[in-house]
Parts: sequence; C-alpha cells; structure tokens
Amino acid sequence: MEQPQFQLMDEDHLSVELIDAQYDLKKTRGQKNAKSLLILVNGIELAGKGEAVKQLREWVDPRYLRVKADAPQVAGPKQTLWQPYARFIPAEGQIMVLFGNWYSDLLSSAMQASDPITNTQFNHYLQEMQAFEQDLKNNHVDVVKVWFDLSWKALQKRLDAMDPSEAHWHQLHGLDWRDRKQYDTLQRLRQHFTEDWFIIEGEDEQQRDQQFAQHILGALKHCPNHPARASGRWKQAKIPELLKHPAETRAKAEDYKPELKKLTAKVAKAMRSDPRNVVILFEGMDAAGKGGAIKRIVKKLDPREYEIHTIAAPEKYELSRPYLWRFWTKLQSDDDICIFDRSWYGRVLVERIEGFASAAEWQRAYAEINRFEQSLVKHQTVVIKLWLAISKDEQAARFKAREDTPHKRFKITEDDWRNRERWDDYLKAAADMFERSSTDYAPWHIIATDDKNTARVEVLKAILKQLQAE
Amino acid sequence: MEQPQFQLMDEDHLSVELIDAQYDLKKTRGQKNAKSLLILVNGIELAGKGEAVKQLREWVDPRYLRVKADAPQVAGPKQTLWQPYARFIPAEGQIMVLFGNWYSDLLSSAMQASDPITNTQFNHYLQEMQAFEQDLKNNHVDVVKVWFDLSWKALQKRLDAMDPSEAHWHQLHGLDWRDRKQYDTLQRLRQHFTEDWFIIEGEDEQQRDQQFAQHILGALKHCPNHPARASGRWKQAKIPELLKHPAETRAKAEDYKPELKKLTAKVAKAMRSDPRNVVILFEGMDAAGKGGAIKRIVKKLDPREYEIHTIAAPEKYELSRPYLWRFWTKLQSDDDICIFDRSWYGRVLVERIEGFASAAEWQRAYAEINRFEQSLVKHQTVVIKLWLAISKDEQAARFKAREDTPHKRFKITEDDWRNRERWDDYLKAAADMFERSSTDYAPWHIIATDDKNTARVEVLKAILKQLQAE
Repeated sequence: MEQPQFQLMDEDHLSVELIDAQYDLKKTRGQKNAKSLLILVNGIELAGKGEAVKQLREWVDPRYLRVKADAPQVAGPKQTLWQPYARFIPAEGQIMVLFGNWYSDLLSSAMQASDPITNTQFNHYLQEMQAFEQDLKNNHVDVVKVWFDLSWKALQKRLDAMDPSEAHWHQLHGLDWRDRKQYDTLQRLRQHFTEDWFIIEGEDEQQRDQQFAQHILGALKHCPNHPARASGRWKQAKIPELLKHPAETRAKAEDYKPELKKLTAKVAKAMRSDPRNVVILFEGMDAAGKGGAIKRIVKKLDPREYEIHTIAAPEKYELSRPYLWRFWTKLQSDDDICIFDRSWYGRVLVERIEGFASAAEWQRAYAEINRFEQSLVKHQTVVIKLWLAISKDEQAARFKAREDTPHKRFKITEDDWRNRERWDDYLKAAADMFERSSTDYAPWHIIATDDKNTARVEVLKAILKQLQAE
Repeated sequence: MEQPQFQLMDEDHLSVELIDAQYDLKKTRGQKNAKSLLILVNGIELAGKGEAVKQLREWVDPRYLRVKADAPQVAGPKQTLWQPYARFIPAEGQIMVLFGNWYSDLLSSAMQASDPITNTQFNHYLQEMQAFEQDLKNNHVDVVKVWFDLSWKALQKRLDAMDPSEAHWHQLHGLDWRDRKQYDTLQRLRQHFTEDWFIIEGEDEQQRDQQFAQHILGALKHCPNHPARASGRWKQAKIPELLKHPAETRAKAEDYKPELKKLTAKVAKAMRSDPRNVVILFEGMDAAGKGGAIKRIVKKLDPREYEIHTIAAPEKYELSRPYLWRFWTKLQSDDDICIFDRSWYGRVLVERIEGFASAAEWQRAYAEINRFEQSLVKHQTVVIKLWLAISKDEQAARFKAREDTPHKRFKITEDDWRNRERWDDYLKAAADMFERSSTDYAPWHIIATDDKNTARVEVLKAILKQLQAE
C-alpha cells in the first residue's frame, strides 16, 4: 500500500475529527451508504500496537469502539477462518478492533515448530482470507489492515529495556523474539500478504499513534459505494423439466415402510460414523414436505445429536450485518449435524423475488455462497443441499388439506398463498440457483415430492449417496 | 411434586392443544403477561428423555421449540452455574429444552470418582440453583423440570436389548450403568432436588411421551402473574452526607502526578497477578468522571488484557429476556478483567426513576443483584463497585466546559440535562442502592469527585484495597 504523506496533526483537532467521523458512521446504520469498520491489527511484538490502539481509544468516543483480543490459536482441522471471529463482525455503524484474527492464526500455524504448514497451504489460506474480506466489504464491512513493524535492532533494544514484570504479554504469543531466525521467517511470511496493508514503523511513538489514528480517520471518512444495479444483463437459466413437472413415481405401500425403516437407520449410522460434520439444508416450495423429510432424517437420532435451524425473516440486529452472518454464527465447528429448514439460499430466492436484496446483491450472492460452502467443505464438513420439487396442483391439494386439519392449520399462512402467486418467479430463481451454485463440492439434489413416500426415500438416498460418494 | 391424575389423550387433539398454546405463548412477547418456557430435562440413562422430547417436537410446531444439549461438564472453579447456559435462556414467547444443564453438571461433579464434592457443597449448589431459577421465574422465564426415571431392573433389561451400534450416547455420560452402586448413588443424590420436579416413569413409552407432552401443555397454559405493584410501603434510605456534599480535598498538583503514576502501575500489577477475575463497575451522575477514572485504571494495561463494556439502553432482543441476561452473556469465565461504565444497577437507578421497571421489579432487584454478585464472588471473581459522587454545582461547571470544548461536545446530550433535573431522585435511588446492595463480598466505594485528581487517586486506592483486603 502506498504510504501517504504524513504530517502530525494537532491532537485536539484530530480527536474532534475522529469523533465527528464516528458519529457520521453511526448515522449510516440502516442507510444506503451503511458501513461498519473492522480493524485488523497485527505486527511485530513491542512495535506498539497495543499502545496505538489505546491512544486511539482516548481520542475517539470509546463507547463506539470495541476492542477484542484472543491469543492466536492454531486452528483445528474442522474450523473455518471465520468461525472463531464471526461473532465479532461489527454491525453497521460500529467499529471493532481485532487483535487476534485470521492472520495471527495463520502466522501461528506457519511458525509452529512441530508441524508447520507448507508454502502452498499458506498461500492458499491467504487467498481464502482475501476472498472473505472482499465479501465483507461488499456487505458493508470495511476491513482495514494495519501492520506494526519494528526493525530487529529496535526490537532487541526494547526487549533489553523491558521491565521484567511486564514480560507477561510478550511470552503469550509463543515466539522467541530474541531469535533472529524466527524474526526473519516472520518478516518473510508476512510479506506474502501485507502488500495491501497499512504499515506503521513502530520506532517513534508519537508518529506511530498519529499515523494509526489518521489512517483510521481516513477509513472512517471513506464513503462506500454500494451499487444497487447489476452491472450487466442477467442471463436467466432454463428451468429444469423436473421442476415444472416433478416425476410421479408412486412407491408401493408395502415396499415403502420396510425400506424407509432400513434407510433411516442407515442414514443415522452414516452421519454418526462420518468423521466430518454434516450440514443438510432444505429449500423448495411451501408444503413440499421439508418438515416430513427432516423428521425421517432424525428419526433414529437422539435430539441431542443434531440441531435443526428453522430460518425465518432476519431480525433487526441480523439485518445490520452481512447476510451470511447469521449462518456463520450458527455454524460452529463442534456441531456434528446441522439441519436447515430453509437456508442462506433465501438471498437468491425470497430476497430476490420480493426485492429485499438489490439486483447487485443477489447476483453477487451466488459466488459468495459458493465460497462460503467451499470453506465449510474444506474444513471437513459435508454440505448436502436438497430442493423438494412439488407440482402446483399437488401444492394446492396440500394447502387445502392443511386448512381442513386442525393440528396442521398452523402450517398454512397468508404468506403461503401469496408465494404461490409468484410460482413462476420461484421456478426461475431456483433454476438460476441450480446453475450457479451446484458445485462439485456441494451439489444440489432435486427431489420430486408429489408422492410423499417416494420423496422421503429419495431424500435419504441422496444423503447416503453424498456421504459415501465423497 | 404431586403427580396429577393422568389419562391418555387423543394424539391429534393433544397436538392441536399444544400448538394453540405455543401460539398463545408467542403472542405474549412484550406483553404484560409475557413469558418463555425453559424445560430442564434430566434422568436415568435409557429412560427415554430423548424419545419423549422427539415426540413432543413432532406434536408441536417445531420451529418454536429449540433443543440444546451439551455433554455435562465438571464446572471449572471460576465458572458460575449460569455461565455455560446464559445464551440459551429463551426470549419471551420462546420454548427451550435444555438437556445439558446445571443439574447434569452438578451430578457429574458429584459422581466423578477422583474428586467428588462434599454433601455440604452439593446442597449449597442446589440452593444457588433454586434461587437462580426463582429469579428466572420472576423475570418471565418459567422453568419446568422433568426427571425421567427408570428402575434398576428395567434399565438392565434395556441395556441387554440395546443394539451395540447405538451404544454411542450411553457412553458419553461417563457413568457405568451396569454398576448398581453408581445407580443407587445417583438416585440418592437426585432425591435431594427432585421434590419439585415432574417425575416420569420411563417404562411405558406411550405413557411416558404423553405424560411429558401433557405436562408441557399445562406449563404452556399456566398464566404467570407479574405483579407491578410492590407488596409493602417502601422504606427510603437516608441519603449519605457524602452524596449531598462530596468532600472537597484538593490534591496538591506536585504530589498528584508521581502518586498517580505509582498507583496505576500498582493497580495493573495487582489485577494481573491476582488469580481471580476482576470486575469493576462505575455508577454516578453524568460528568462525575467515570471515563477519566477508567482511563487511569487501564493506563498500564495492554488493550488485550481487559474489556470495557459501556452500558446504554438495552436492545429489543435484550428486553425480551431477564434484565440481568445481557450481563450474564457479557461475563464469561475466561475474561480476566472487565470494566463496566454503568452496569446492572441501571435497574434500581434509571429504570426505577424513569419508570421502565415497575415498583415490584426494581424493589426485587436488590436481592437479585446481590445473588448475582455473590455467584461471581464465589467463583473467584472480585467485584469492585464505585460510585463517583459529584456536587450539583461542579456538574454544571463540567457540562458547560464540555459544551465549550469541540472534542468533548459529544459527551453532553439532552439526556444529561434531563437527568440533572431529577438530581434528588437519583440521590434517593443511590441511597437505597448503597443500603441494600453494599455487601461484605461486594461493598460499594463512594468516591468524591469534585476534585478530579483526588478522585482518580481514590479510585485506584479503593481498587487496591479491595484486591488486597480479600
């Protein structure tokens, strides 16, 4: 990153400007130009990142600047880069400083003596991080990255001068800052990614604090541009025949029960014995049988083994964050089996159709979702996506039946009838979704559901297939 | 608990009633009769708690019934009973089933072979739990506790019949269910607390599922009574002289700086070296110097060592839970140093004065807060409470100065002027607060702040005193 001309500002003046910018940021919440600021802080030990952040906190209104720091950790194999940090992604209008972040995790993993990652892995993780940050930026979270640097000589001098009682923090990070070789390795590694970072030389304290604060001021003032209109003409995918006319194979009643029984047991066993986590998501028209299918999947599981997430409209505090955020925070790496009754695909289905997402947003979402699922799959999670396809006639019959059955009446609302009016829009949106988000690592399974029994069997078979095929 | 007469209901009818009751519950959100339902499920292995919950989930609208299960854990010494579960406390209108809960943790701790807790400890924990549950109930969370029982004979029979591939879950809980002595110990221990539980005999599956579902139905239908009016006449405490006329010792400028420097270093060292967690909270009139005092406390700390929580009005999702909930979720047992700029005492200050809390609510809050702080102190946390006392004249002078200083202008709002008009109400509320919540384990420190320098020194001294005195 090109370092701008730098001049010391009057401190009071700097403080006023920072506070004004903070308040302007706060006011953007829920607006077209909404943004939040995520500040990633990394660097050489004793270069003064802590001091610079503390000074910043004294210049701004500290109530609207949060700081979070966890010791860097060597990530577990099932852990995506965003899982430990998702809950700290700031809401629109907020500022968050993250000391411990994906870069410190990466450096820890690369520097650990016992089992360092390879160069290829390192660069691969970097790409993943940069893509994730781009997704954050596109979704109103500005990411600012600052590296606090210190020369070997200056570092050694500071170590010499250190009060032994304050050594506390500098041991935490598990590196020996007296070891020249380690220092050089770290500098070499960080140069793989700091090209677009703001680099602050930590030697002069006043300059350091001001450079940091002025850079944050610039970031606060930066006005993001969220284009609502898409860049090009949208190329609508062809609607698959199976969606228009779901196949109507009827399972024989006498075959159905034993087969279902066998399959539910097999699915339970397969999910349990799979060392990976399993995420299963359902999409499809109302009354296509999502609930019934989920029941059969969990039939032989204990309720303690899985979690079902029913996805409805987002809450206010969720709306002020990237739309994937509410899924990031739901998917923890220690959840073995997660089932989603509707999912993040709402972005390219209901949000597209109802206009809750702009054209630019939903058109960009396919790539964002693909990256999101890829990060899960790379970190030992099987992502199984099921579309339940029902015909329009069969849906009408089921709506009617639900209205006539007291304990099913809750399943049918005005929204359902309204969605039905937009049937063709949903088919089109689904077609685009299959074309753009059916990947080799997370393919879509389309299941015809006009015959409920066949559908339930096919859902279980699709799950088994994907669990064993991979 | 007296077991009511029990009759099997028609399943469809039961389902309709459950769903209706669920929807009625949902509608109470934000209303006077608001409540949520927290279902604690414990019992003998293989008695069928999982199955009963699964069946319940099939009868109700599963979207509004969440299930959470974590393996029971032997709680760490710094962990209160509510810390692992706070985030699962349901919001008004919601239902949550907790398999892993404070009772399973307690039983695990009591049953572990290596270092079992004593009877006295066991009973002491129970009292704490029951008090906590009462606080939940008073704050709109109905707690329903169900024990699934199974005789020794029936348990052995089920173990014999078990498919070995399903043994998975039954090993998790770390007990040997073939060991008669262990079984008897567990039964003996649980009888210390199950008197007010609903006990279900797990032998007959149909009865078991229906008994459970019917009991939940009853709990859903139970209409809580949240009295708004207090029971008796409120006895106002006398306002301490120090609040009305804060002492005005002026520190000599030449003494101040070196003393402050010495004290900030001492406080940092004391907090770091203390094996306990430290919670420091500030209350006091606007402009009394909370921000300045906090700055001095953290002066010699790295921003990564502490967390500052600035407490403003609660958000909507926080309002639909017990008012202490937003503090439960902020206080995690691995946070070493937490500083609160305003705190849970808002309940008996601003909420009392502005009428956001009913008389019954704020009058009850003193005891709730005392219990809350006691649970922290018992689990190795120092709770330091500081009231900054300013005179009305000095406040006026500071407001004026803030308005005249550009980078401090943000500190002064219309609210501040409005609060000032209620000066005497705040003094009264503070007086009551000191009288009722200054405990031996978490005393209040009142610091006169008309002279800022003296105040900062006194704040640091009070912290040192409490850290060393205990």
